[in-house]
This record gives sequence, structure tokens and C-alpha cells, in this order.
Amino acid sequence: MSTARYSYLGPEGTFSEEALRTLPEAADAALLPARTVPEALDAVRTGDADAALVPLENSVGGSVPVTVDDLVAGGPLQIRREVVLPIRFVFATRDGRGTDAVRTVAAHPQASAQCRHWLRDTVPAATVTDVLSNATAAIRCAEGEYDGALSTPLAARRHGLTVLAEGVADHADAMTRFVLLSRPAPAPPPTGNDVTTIAVFIAHDRVGALLAVLTELAVRGVNLSRIESRPTGEALGRYCFLLDCTGHVADARMGEALAGLRRICRDVRYFGSYPRAGAEPPVPPPAGMSDADFTEAQSWLARVRAGDADPPTG
Amino acid sequence: MSTARYSYLGPEGTFSEEALRTLPEAADAALLPARTVPEALDAVRTGDADAALVPLENSVGGSVPVTVDDLVAGGPLQIRREVVLPIRFVFATRDGRGTDAVRTVAAHPQASAQCRHWLRDTVPAATVTDVLSNATAAIRCAEGEYDGALSTPLAARRHGLTVLAEGVADHADAMTRFVLLSRPAPAPPPTGNDVTTIAVFIAHDRVGALLAVLTELAVRGVNLSRIESRPTGEALGRYCFLLDCTGHVADARMGEALAGLRRICRDVRYFGSYPRAGAEPPVPPPAGMSDADFTEAQSWLARVRAGDADPPTG
Amino acid sequence: MSTARYSYLGPEGTFSEEALRTLPEAADAALLPARTVPEALDAVRTGDADAALVPLENSVGGSVPVTVDDLVAGGPLQIRREVVLPIRFVFATRDGRGTDAVRTVAAHPQASAQCRHWLRDTVPAATVTDVLSNATAAIRCAEGEYDGALSTPLAARRHGLTVLAEGVADHADAMTRFVLLSRPAPAPPPTGNDVTTIAVFIAHDRVGALLAVLTELAVRGVNLSRIESRPTGEALGRYCFLLDCTGHVADARMGEALAGLRRICRDVRYFGSYPRAGAEPPVPPPAGMSDADFTEAQSWLARVRAGDADPPTG
Amino acid sequence: MSTARYSYLGPEGTFSEEALRTLPEAADAALLPARTVPEALDAVRTGDADAALVPLENSVGGSVPVTVDDLVAGGPLQIRREVVLPIRFVFATRDGRGTDAVRTVAAHPQASAQCRHWLRDTVPAATVTDVLSNATAAIRCAEGEYDGALSTPLAARRHGLTVLAEGVADHADAMTRFVLLSRPAPAPPPTGNDVTTIAVFIAHDRVGALLAVLTELAVRGVNLSRIESRPTGEALGRYCFLLDCTGHVADARMGEALAGLRRICRDVRYFGSYPRAGAEPPVPPPAGMSDADFTEAQSWLARVRAGDADPPTG
Repeated sequence: MSTARYSYLGPEGTFSEEALRTLPEAADAALLPARTVPEALDAVRTGDADAALVPLENSVGGSVPVTVDDLVAGGPLQIRREVVLPIRFVFATRDGRGTDAVRTVAAHPQASAQCRHWLRDTVPAATVTDVLSNATAAIRCAEGEYDGALSTPLAARRHGLTVLAEGVADHADAMTRFVLLSRPAPAPPPTGNDVTTIAVFIAHDRVGALLAVLTELAVRGVNLSRIESRPTGEALGRYCFLLDCTGHVADARMGEALAGLRRICRDVRYFGSYPRAGAEPPVPPPAGMSDADFTEAQSWLARVRAGDADPPTG
Repeated sequence: MSTARYSYLGPEGTFSEEALRTLPEAADAALLPARTVPEALDAVRTGDADAALVPLENSVGGSVPVTVDDLVAGGPLQIRREVVLPIRFVFATRDGRGTDAVRTVAAHPQASAQCRHWLRDTVPAATVTDVLSNATAAIRCAEGEYDGALSTPLAARRHGLTVLAEGVADHADAMTRFVLLSRPAPAPPPTGNDVTTIAVFIAHDRVGALLAVLTELAVRGVNLSRIESRPTGEALGRYCFLLDCTGHVADARMGEALAGLRRICRDVRYFGSYPRAGAEPPVPPPAGMSDADFTEAQSWLARVRAGDADPPTG
Repeated sequence: MSTARYSYLGPEGTFSEEALRTLPEAADAALLPARTVPEALDAVRTGDADAALVPLENSVGGSVPVTVDDLVAGGPLQIRREVVLPIRFVFATRDGRGTDAVRTVAAHPQASAQCRHWLRDTVPAATVTDVLSNATAAIRCAEGEYDGALSTPLAARRHGLTVLAEGVADHADAMTRFVLLSRPAPAPPPTGNDVTTIAVFIAHDRVGALLAVLTELAVRGVNLSRIESRPTGEALGRYCFLLDCTGHVADARMGEALAGLRRICRDVRYFGSYPRAGAEPPVPPPAGMSDADFTEAQSWLARVRAGDADPPTG
Repeated sequence: MSTARYSYLGPEGTFSEEALRTLPEAADAALLPARTVPEALDAVRTGDADAALVPLENSVGGSVPVTVDDLVAGGPLQIRREVVLPIRFVFATRDGRGTDAVRTVAAHPQASAQCRHWLRDTVPAATVTDVLSNATAAIRCAEGEYDGALSTPLAARRHGLTVLAEGVADHADAMTRFVLLSRPAPAPPPTGNDVTTIAVFIAHDRVGALLAVLTELAVRGVNLSRIESRPTGEALGRYCFLLDCTGHVADARMGEALAGLRRICRDVRYFGSYPRAGAEPPVPPPAGMSDADFTEAQSWLARVRAGDADPPTG
């Protein structure tokens, strides 16, 4: 059997690499850093990689637009797992200089957004420049282009920087959620604590269209753990919504809800069902919404349609 | 082949008999008058009759409680058809006496309710006594017990009364809706303009339970042509709801709505799908709610569950 | 000060009289029996009585249509209080005869409906005839017209009948709810456990109109303890809905809900706010729906409209 | 009178400057470029500027997170107007070189996101580097740091670059919406075609909380032209929602909806009512939702509370 290949948002030393290395299946795999999220995902689409690990959202910076947009607009991919990683930046400098000698800082925009107040307090005079990744920040600092860098512990160490501060963050508990994406395939089996991710495109000229979408879910007892709007690019005011629904595509209630959305929306795209990461306990389906409830109701309906007598049960 | 037997709310001469005689299948059948609605329905349950025709509601007097209660609480029966009949009472007297000689009037309570103002204006001094049927009013007037009767044209003629006024009604267009009930059997095939009648029992201690019932219907594009509350007899404030839904039990949207109600309600009882009487044109299902829409969504869901790639269609 | 006059559904000995006698204010009042509910109510409208006590609904027989229809269609009246009375019929006969000598029974239709099974079991061969009131049943039995009567303890005693059975009822806990109606006046002050009764007329040609009515209430945290549909008399399928809402017209949430219904319905009629009878404990308003919450939100809105800075409170 | 001062997202030559120059009131004002959106907004908060013009969202790239986050988390500011500008980038190079000599490109992330396919097709081998603004891209290209730049027409001309392509965009009709913000003040008067922008913070542990928010708006006939979720920074799965509502804070329906949100949400922040830019015609309030309808319903409620008789109007 050939070695599995995983692409990830590189370069080496990113939080994406760190997240990927938490997966047991990645231990013996070839890890392929990609320059950008679209390149990491295209490697899967073309078959150069079996799966790709990229960031999807951060608890402080929010959604990672490039991931969402590529997922929504690109060729079909499916989420196989999610990895949630605490994000603890290091602030590191070249040649052992202290903070008062720092005039320029390299940082990924999500990093500087999450450390804005820390930077303002610690290196108030420094100019912060956006770079493409947390690892790039360390590299370009090591190359002498910037005095300091917000980066990952891994990248700072690899590139010989001096770490002045660890665990840098405005919010102590910042987390990033990464997803592992593959080409379309049947979902992993339900675990009882799953997420189903979809995008819905609503008719922009219909009042109450979003209310209708939420009602389709609520009526089947499907809860949302996340809703995000993204422009479709057609015009201001045209959005699609990326939804994380609690449950698995194999669940009866989820299937009926998805089919309901399919009927009322302009388009629905399915991005996979996969186990929820983290310690939150599973939420059982509401009363009347278990698979057994659906089966019972369906068999009652079959009896009713067959004309069988159905004595009161109340 | 043996002759069909139809029971109806008697005695002979009632509007029920008149309604029954509008059905072609009743032309050669044995018509069996029953003293009460429960007796007419029990004749079907025991096999003494093939079907029963009884009144269900009137556009002025409202629901006929005895029919609803027997239907809801009794052994299973199903509505096979409905008959809507304009209700035009006659006011008739014995021995040709005029209105000024009328001191006592016999009338069925639904009749006196529908002619209250007419009676007040025409025979203001008369005492109106409730009797069991419109035909009974004529019989007891003919027997000398009452001076006058509100009755049907048929009964007044049969019992030799003098008709002083025809088309008596406070509301010119009063209609009664009768239903023909049989033992449980598959529904007649959809006609495109059908009614499905059900009763739902909701958990009395759940806020918003009725809102939830209506939402189950609305989400599947099922409209209501009638809703009626009836006490369950358990306590004040405990109701069941009799619903006339637009559509046929064989429709995909109706099936899903009924199964949804089955899951969230304490009990649901199905009383049949049958063609809508009268001239109102059929209402097509809303966008996304046709059988074809359900089939397409279901096959999309099957592809999604199978892990097939589903390129954007938007 | 002149003596208060109360009309009630007579004749003497009805449950209405019994209910009226439970009111302290009726102790020294003149009690005026009326032949019918409309007569009892018209006595108030014309000023012949100060208030009228009539039955509104029964836990077994359901609504009392004549009361509802007169309230909805007649001149304005308002409910001042409700009285809930357990309904225990007596079965009584003339001349001490036993049940096996009973061929004919007089009963009010609500009484025979509530004792149907008891009558079937006890006097299976008897013909039951509808009479105008429970008291009338005793009177006409005493006059020799019927062998037996379903009646009230009071009426059976007054008219010298032999009580063969007390506490007669198919449902042991049958209750009737009576209401005391006066000409329009400000409601009695809130007690914290009040009912507001209204009728709403919805546009018959609007899909989801009833859903919209319930949503207006639900959004303001107003619960329903009762909903009843009554035909408007215009045509089959045209209804108004009589609603008992939990709360008082002086409550902010109730006021906003009523005004909301006024805006979206064809018509809304208000029939009074009054203390809830019986032992059910008061239900406090849901979170965010107390008068204090409304006041706070209104004053926030005033600040917002005035352009005042409103720092985050989250 | 002193000269008005407007800060904007600089440096000189940005689309923000271009948008600001479309405002008549900016003709004689001092225009103050700021390095970042937070600096532009803080200038208003501290009184160094009277108002600030910054980008809020783009039809392709979506929301501008830094603007939204600063607005939501910072000291109170209010939107006074919006400006919608078509976004047409130029692709420009230094020293007149052609596309085949371009190895490195400077671009603002929103610009490269909106021109991703164009860049891939035109300069497939080039590395694209994020810079802080469209104007910065031109400056650093002119300084020799990059071969080419995606920039604005204004900046390319000012810095002496050679424009190789105009109107560069993957989507021909990309628009950016800018907002002019001031310190809190009463809103400009209603024009009949206004927007009200708010942020709502919902209780994260309440199922259906977003459904409840949308229902508060829908019940008062308030439509949404935009909904955007942003993380609150507390944890994954905690969001606030930025809503653009159709209507003005002075409208009765908007006021009642805002007060309703205030009652059920953890927090609501109001960011102003202002005229809608662009050619879309105003949408009149739905039936029953005009100010006149609210006034009528309120006066009816006052009559009802006063105990006045209100004859049926249906």
C-alpha cells in the first residue's frame, strides 16, 4: 500500500502542520506544505494529495474566507474530520534583540488581529506587516527583513529566533478549527456526536427566506452550532450561508431537513458529516426526532395509506 | 351482488336523507334512517350498514358536536366523500293556521340557531322547543304537540303540514356539509382537489404546541381549510383539534406532514382523504412542494449519502 | 344605593343559578332568571340587569355555542369574572319509580351528552328528549310529561322528584365555566393570574393567517389557555377564533400583542380581562416579557432615538 | 466656522479616499488619511476628526472584519451615510515592464481575492504578497520592492506606474460599500428608503435563538438586507450578528422590533439609521405595518383599556 499524502497550509511550521500532526493517520504519511489554501485543496482535487488540512475558522478572527470561498465555489470536497487547536503565538526576534529594538514586525493578518492589543502595548512604535503565514513571519524575520515576528513555537525554533514571549494572545483561549478535506466519499459512520456542514443559497428576492431555512431545520429538531454568511460575488446583498448542523447525514431528521432545504433553496451544497472535536458532550435529538421516532411515524403513515384501522393510542 | 346499505341521520325527511339522495350510488341502495348520529355510525361499525351519511358542520351553526365527538372517540371510520347542501328551512303549521296563531314551535337546535332572527320577527310570542331532528319537528307538529315547525320541505310535505314560508334562514346562503363514512379502507385516488381530515391531540402542558402543529403543516406547504377545537373531556383546557388539510394522504408533502405530526403530538387520528365538494378550483402545491420536488430532493439526498460528487447547480 | 340585579340562564334551579350564588356580591342582589342566554345578555344591554351569568363552556360538551355567538355578534359586553363549577347531575323520577319503569327522560343536550354512557347503561330502553335547561327537565318530569330527568340537585329537590342517583356523569370531573358579563367598563385590576378573552376574525384568503395570529401572541410571550373556532355565518370555511389569553389587558406584553393582532386581522373584539378561577397557580411572564422588561426596552429605545451613546452591556 | 475634518482609510489614493470625495460635504473639508481602520475610527472617538469613512463590505470579498470588529467592540459610533462604489482595480508595473517580466505582485488581500482568477491567468508565475492597502501596493511597487501591483487608478497615477490593465476583476460588477461614521447623534430624518444597522448578541445556549431574532423582525414587517455573523472572541461557536434592517429607527415598526430584540437578546447595539445608497426603489411597509397602522392600533388599545365599547367593524 502506498503512503498517504496530506497537503496542508504551509510553509513548514504553521499551526496547520501542528494540527495535522495530531492525527494518528498522519504519523507515517507524506506531509505536503502548500503555499495557499487553494493550492492545498487543489492538490486533493487533482489527486496529488489524498486529503488536505486547512484552517476554517478562529474563535477571535472568525472565518477564514479563502477556505470558505474555495470550498463553496470550487470542485466538490468533503470534510472528513475537524481538529480544534488552541492558538498560542510566540513573539520572537532576530539576533536576540529586545522589544525596544523592534521597529518592524511580520505577522499573518489573523495573528495580528488576535494580538492587536498585545502588540499595541508591547511594541507600540512598531509597524506590523501582513505576511502569508505564521511560518513565513519567522522566515522573513530570520532573513533580516523584519525585526520581530508573531509566529508559532515550531517555526520560531526551526528558524533560530529568540522567543521573547510565549502564549501571546489578546484572548487567552483562542482556538482555531481546522478541517481535513478529501474528495467526495460516503461519510464516516455516525458517532452520536457529529456535525454536518452545508452551504445554502437563498433566493435573494424572497422575504423571510432565511427564516424559512431556519424553520426547515428547527421543525426537524436540527440545531445549528454555526452560521456564517458569505457574499456570492454576484452583487451586494447576495449571500450564501455556511451552516454547521448538529447531527449526521445518515440521521433521519437530518436527511429530511436537508431534503427540505433542497426543495426551498436555490441551491444546497453538502460538505460532509464528521465527528465533532472537543469535549462537548453529545446532544441527544429532541423528543420525537430520533431515528426510532421517524421509523415509527413512517410505519404509521404506511398503515394509514393502506387503509388499516388505527385505534386511538392517546 | 347484494344491495348496498346506507344509514343516515333520520328520521325520513331530514336534510341528511336529501344529501344522501344526491349520491348516484345511493339510487339503488337501501337507505336506513337512524335515530341519532351515533346510531348511524355504529351501524357501519357493526356491519349493519356499508356507510353512513351524517352532518359534520354548518356554515352558521358551526360544527355538529355529536358527529365530531363520535368520530374522534369511537371506533375507526373514514370519510369517503363530502356533500355540501344549501340549507333552506320551511316554516309550516298544522291545520292551516297562520303565524299569529302559533304559540309553540318545534325545531332542531341547529335550525332555530340559523333562524333565530326570523323567528323573533315572525312569531315573537312563540316558545321554541328543541327536538331531535328537523323531521321530528314536522312529525310532532303534525301530531298536535306544537303549533308550528321549522323543518325540511320533504318532511313538511310527507306529514301534511301547511308551508307558510320557504327558504327560511337568517343567512341566505347557509350550507351544511355532510360526510359519508365507511369502515377503514384505502382512500379514493387523488383528484388534484382533495381534503384530508385528521384530529391531533396536543400535550396540554407544552407552550406553543398548537403553533408547532401549524408549523409542521406550513413547512410542507399544506394549507388548512378548517380547524376546530373540541374538549377531550379530561378537564377544562384540554382540547383536540380537528383539521381539514388541503391535499391527499398519497401526496408526498401530506405524508411527510402527517408523519411529522405523529412524532410531535400525543396522538394523531386520520379520518380519510376524499374529493373536495363544490366549485372551488384546486390549489396547486406551493413552489418546492409537488411530488416531483420531493422525488428530486430525495434522490439528491441519496446521492449525498452515497458520497457522490454533486457539482453546484446554482 | 339600589339593589344590584343579575340575570342568569334560568329557570330557577339551573347550574347557572348555583354558580351565581357562589358570588358574594350576589347575596343581596335581585336574581332574574332568563329563558335563554340571549335574553339574559340582552337584559344587560338594555339596562334591565347590571350583569348576567351564563355558561361559556363545559369540559365535556365543549363550548356553549349560543353564548359565544351572542357575545361575538351582539352588542358589546365584557366578562368581569369567571366561575368554574363541578357539574354533578342527579337522575330523578316522578312518583318514586325506579329505573326499570323509566321509558322517557328529559335532559338538556349538554347534560345528555355528558351522561350518554350512563344513560345507555342505566336506562337503555328510554327515549331521551332534549329540553331547554336542566331545571326544565325537572319541571316537565314533575308535570308528568317524562318519567325521569337528568337535572340539578336544586331543581330536583324544588320540584319534589325522587333522586335515584347523584353525581351522574360519564366523566367524573366534568366542570362548567360560567362568565359574568356587564356592559363595557375598565377591567378589574390585574391580580397576577388573569385571563383576557378576545375574538379574532382572519382574512379567509390568506395562507397562514392563523399561524400569524399565534405568532403575534408567542412573540410577546402570551400563552393561550383556550382556542375555539366558530363559523362567521358567511360561508363554509369562514371562521372567527375565540381566544383565552393568559394575562391582563393592562400588561405591556398583552397590550402589544393585542395591538399587533389589531393590525393584521380583519377584526379583533375584546371581551374583558378578569381573574382566573380555580387553583392553577399563576404563570409568570417568560424571560424578557415582564412590564419591567418592556419599560427598560422602551427607555433604551428612547435613548437610541435621541442619539445618546449606549455603551455595550454584554 | 471651523473646517470639517474627515478621517479615512489611507494612505492617499485608496478607494476610501475616492468614496469620500463623492460626498459634497467633503469638498471643503480636511481629509485625514489613517494607517488603519481602527486609527480612522479612533480619530472620531477622540475628537480629532468629525467623521470617518471606512469600507464595511465588498460584494466579492465579503465583510471587512476589522471595521465590523472595531465597530462592535469599540466606543460608540454611528453610521451617518453609506457610499457604494464600483471597484475597478488597475494592474500596474514599474519601469514599463510587461506581464511576462512580473515575478512579484503587491496587493491588498481583498484586491487579490477579487482578482484571483485574473492573476492566475495573467501572471501565473508571480508571487502575490499581501500589503496593507491598495495604495500601499502602488507605493511599494514604485519603490522597487515588487514588480507589479494591483491598485487604484488614483494611486497608480500618483506614483508613476504603468497601467497594463484597467477594470481588473474576476467579477465585473464588484462593489464596495463604505460607511461614514460619527459620534452618537440623532439619526438623519427618514427618507422613506433607509437602513438601520444593529448588532445582536444572542444567548449561545438557547436553541432557536437566531430563529427568535428573525421572528421579532418578521412579525413587525421589518426586512433584512444583510446578516453577518462575527465571533465574539469568547469561544468557538459564540457569535454576534450584524444586521442591516430595512427602515428607520423613527418608524413605529422598527422601534417595536428593536425593543423586542432588546428584551430577548443578551445585548443589542444600534449603529444608526441612514439613507440607502443606490438605485433600488424603496420598499413600502407590509400591510398593517405603517406608522398610521400602529397609531390606529394604539388608539384602539387605549379605548379598550379605558373600557369603551368598541362595536364590531368586520
